[in-house]
Amino acid sequence: MNWRMHTDYRVYLVTDRDLCLGRNLEDVVLAAVRGGAGAVQLREKNASSREFLALARALVSRLQPLGVPLIINDRADIALASGAAGLHVGQSDLPPEDARRLMGPDAIIGLSVETREELLDAEKLDIDYVGLSPIFTTPTKTDTHEPWGLAGLRWAREHSPLTLVAIGGIHRNNAADVVAAGAHSLAVVSELCSAQNPEEAARNLLAVFEK
Amino acid sequence: MNWRMHTDYRVYLVTDRDLCLGRNLEDVVLAAVRGGAGAVQLREKNASSREFLALARALVSRLQPLGVPLIINDRADIALASGAAGLHVGQSDLPPEDARRLMGPDAIIGLSVETREELLDAEKLDIDYVGLSPIFTTPTKTDTHEPWGLAGLRWAREHSPLTLVAIGGIHRNNAADVVAAGAHSLAVVSELCSAQNPEEAARNLLAVFEK
Repeated sequence: MNWRMHTDYRVYLVTDRDLCLGRNLEDVVLAAVRGGAGAVQLREKNASSREFLALARALVSRLQPLGVPLIINDRADIALASGAAGLHVGQSDLPPEDARRLMGPDAIIGLSVETREELLDAEKLDIDYVGLSPIFTTPTKTDTHEPWGLAGLRWAREHSPLTLVAIGGIHRNNAADVVAAGAHSLAVVSELCSAQNPEEAARNLLAVFEK
Repeated sequence: MNWRMHTDYRVYLVTDRDLCLGRNLEDVVLAAVRGGAGAVQLREKNASSREFLALARALVSRLQPLGVPLIINDRADIALASGAAGLHVGQSDLPPEDARRLMGPDAIIGLSVETREELLDAEKLDIDYVGLSPIFTTPTKTDTHEPWGLAGLRWAREHSPLTLVAIGGIHRNNAADVVAAGAHSLAVVSELCSAQNPEEAARNLLAVFEK
């Protein structure tokens, strides 16, 4: 499977077990996928490596047969050991060139960019998307740069040919604005992980692209 | 270079930048190696992945030409990307089978064991040594099991054919007892990192084996 050619990034779930309202992560993820989430990123900053790998393997075995790639945050070793489809790296994670070298030519590689300079620099890299982070201020991630905002996102769309994944503070009520400003993808954590009904919440986000 | 056949584990330095008394880690490591440390493990629980990789690369380029392997703690991706000679995993890290698969047949793989059962289970694994942890109680690592003690170490030597790396609370004044009890290797953090003279401290540890 060449995930790089066949991934629907429009609704991109980024996990946070602590935000799942006590529900099982796998159940929440599968519900979101039934609602139309086309990509899932497993982000585990506090799990041990062994626990992270076990979670990754469980999700790979459920998601990838459905055509939905699992993308691992930061840890190329976990991605490789679990057979995940890809790796997402931030500016303090493995450099994207090393990520590509370790993961091989068919893996999805995504890179977070927090500034215009980082966005423009990303053009020369062999990556599949950039995550513009954060679009809005968000309580989920507090160590971030100044938000891109809708104006910054518009600028990004005008100045970069890359697939733009918008992340940070996106929810049902601002999703249409984010897409109108140029995002190819809505990446969300709490909007899906903490939704009463993650399937319906994913369907609502996907519907934004179909208007 | 087949590190698995040619590594002198007798004095095994495990790094902790915070214990280097403000000195540069590379300088401390190289001094210890001049004194006879034959293996170095880079342990970085708080560094970002990018910083960890940069440290690993710097040490690989200095150590491995001297015939001293750099062994990375936990992170197979950092080990692979830096060209390190090996990987050390604990019981909550990547399973040793996955570590071997990712690292390949020529890499050093070490495994921490905290109980007799874990030690005996390790015999069937394709690993190069076990780290008996901790031998004594130690302030460096507080999340550990009950210490092996000298009696536990003797038991280990009698019941296991594996190379036994003793770690935890080892210093100049108890090193001879630890070797007499059966350790093939003295792994130390503060005894070298915090030594006034790491070269001399390494020489003192090595001398224990030569008596």
